[in-house]
Amino acid sequence: MSVTLSIDAMGGDFGPKVTVPAALACLRKNPDLKLIMVGDEIVLNGLLADAKLTFKDRIAVHHASQVVEMDEAPQKALKNKKDSSMRVAINLVQQGLADACVSAGNTGALMATARFVLKMIPGIERPAIISTLPSLYGHTHMLDLGGNVDSSAEQLYQFAVMGEEVVKAVENIDKPKVALLNIGEEDMKGNVQVKAAAKLLENSSLNYIGYVEGNSINAGHIKVDLIVTDGFAGNIALKSIEGAAKMISVKLKDSFSQNILTKLVGLIAYPVLKSFKDSIDPRLYNGASFIGLRGLVIKSHGGADALAFETAIHLAEVEVRQAVIRKISEKIEKALEQKVSA
Amino acid sequence: MSVTLSIDAMGGDFGPKVTVPAALACLRKNPDLKLIMVGDEIVLNGLLADAKLTFKDRIAVHHASQVVEMDEAPQKALKNKKDSSMRVAINLVQQGLADACVSAGNTGALMATARFVLKMIPGIERPAIISTLPSLYGHTHMLDLGGNVDSSAEQLYQFAVMGEEVVKAVENIDKPKVALLNIGEEDMKGNVQVKAAAKLLENSSLNYIGYVEGNSINAGHIKVDLIVTDGFAGNIALKSIEGAAKMISVKLKDSFSQNILTKLVGLIAYPVLKSFKDSIDPRLYNGASFIGLRGLVIKSHGGADALAFETAIHLAEVEVRQAVIRKISEKIEKALEQKVSA
Repeated sequence: MSVTLSIDAMGGDFGPKVTVPAALACLRKNPDLKLIMVGDEIVLNGLLADAKLTFKDRIAVHHASQVVEMDEAPQKALKNKKDSSMRVAINLVQQGLADACVSAGNTGALMATARFVLKMIPGIERPAIISTLPSLYGHTHMLDLGGNVDSSAEQLYQFAVMGEEVVKAVENIDKPKVALLNIGEEDMKGNVQVKAAAKLLENSSLNYIGYVEGNSINAGHIKVDLIVTDGFAGNIALKSIEGAAKMISVKLKDSFSQNILTKLVGLIAYPVLKSFKDSIDPRLYNGASFIGLRGLVIKSHGGADALAFETAIHLAEVEVRQAVIRKISEKIEKALEQKVSA
Repeated sequence: MSVTLSIDAMGGDFGPKVTVPAALACLRKNPDLKLIMVGDEIVLNGLLADAKLTFKDRIAVHHASQVVEMDEAPQKALKNKKDSSMRVAINLVQQGLADACVSAGNTGALMATARFVLKMIPGIERPAIISTLPSLYGHTHMLDLGGNVDSSAEQLYQFAVMGEEVVKAVENIDKPKVALLNIGEEDMKGNVQVKAAAKLLENSSLNYIGYVEGNSINAGHIKVDLIVTDGFAGNIALKSIEGAAKMISVKLKDSFSQNILTKLVGLIAYPVLKSFKDSIDPRLYNGASFIGLRGLVIKSHGGADALAFETAIHLAEVEVRQAVIRKISEKIEKALEQKVSA
């Protein structure tokens, strides 16, 4: 099955310098992949002249005259940037010309535009952002990572239902273990929304295992496949983990840079330290999916390099092949029918 | 100035096995320190027979017949454990027989008991938990770490006012930089409470620098002295960081345990890895202060070992010497007066 993705080629901190080499690497690896590079056609045609000869109709350039700035207010971008690479890339999904869109652009603008252009799946109140984080047991999926600042119990429940479909599709497992992020594992812990969401999940068909604390994201005492939380706590957890990893890697580097002797030891230990570094490489976890929309949009980290952006493109490809959006829609439709008949 | 602390000697996962050696280590280091060990007098007198000869009147045992379990519901502990080591240790503070109390016991029970026995500082709506976390710039203080699940803008503002006094006293700085934890640095980001709290802080006398994201706790682009958040997000951030650090240290260890060669490299790199490990040792950050109460209670991590518990005792000592509670009370009184006259 061939997969066509639209790429916001101008998005992110580095634009085509990152998106183009990442796109080419993906085309080399996946013979069934087609990419539409959206952005300034003069720039892109220049960069892709050779690639067009190599990949022929597997790569195309689609012109867009504007670029959404990384710090632009979402509503302004929506109003004033109707021909931005971001907007046009999403339009292609809406028009059925691409199966999904990948962008490293401004998260808020991407979410607002995706929501405006693609619309919500009927029955879903809010789109959510889901991504994968490394853990002692491999990795864990988590949502929402910043799409929503306040979430009701019903919305948290919907996140769980949508997230389950993503995990089932991407991981090829039947009954993913679903947990709610909380500040303790006991029933009495948590805020009103979390406690009410727990009730909804206990009475659902999901494999709900209860509350987990923040440490369970990376290193809990049991494996969890999906952690559900609101976008405020989720984003703070995600960024806190990023900060911790950065501080630890700086301190590790510092320890080996103390003096000539420690530097020598660092040289000897280099291959081991390199394999360690690779094992926690955040670039291998780049790519978050916006779900709840009637089309698939994958958000890459703004500061992604080519390898990281490649991971995001690959994620889009997997989710398209696994028909994640269709599966979420069907699941939500069923859930709504059950509610009506209940 | 002599400082007297009451120690919940039975609290925590390990009880006297940890609290007693930690207490003795502190007494050895600080000739002005006096400790009242609260708990089962038969057990404690047995363990402290030699110490009483060495430290004479600097160590005393105060009997308490009960122990609060680590998973006991706070309200049950409050009702049924009136002679627990935790309760009696807090009573000693209320009665003026100790300047502060240190416990590694059940957080919820400790908070409920402290609040019941010591009462709030007039004008403060909720007590908060404040602690120190390592950062690229040394360390950062953060509150609330789990005392409150939902916090209004006014409460977040009060946390900032109280937190500033703790940072000033402990760090000996004049105008600590205060930030609000949020999911972005732009004005438009955040939930209703955070946005309203930002307004209150902008109009206050505090050195408020704006929003920071989760990564700023350990590794932001600028130094922040105090990060203010509600207890739900704060606790999740704290635990997420714990999980990240644990996963990274396990993966680092794994990298050096691959085979005989990597193990050999690990042996050579041992002193450097040890100095790295020491630089992020969480035991050196153990101890969180409950603030907003009319007496000082320091919570140690339940799983603390003797070194970690020693850090918590030391923190209590510093905060007593710096009269943190008195300074918070005065500050709050002043803030209330300004409000009345405004």
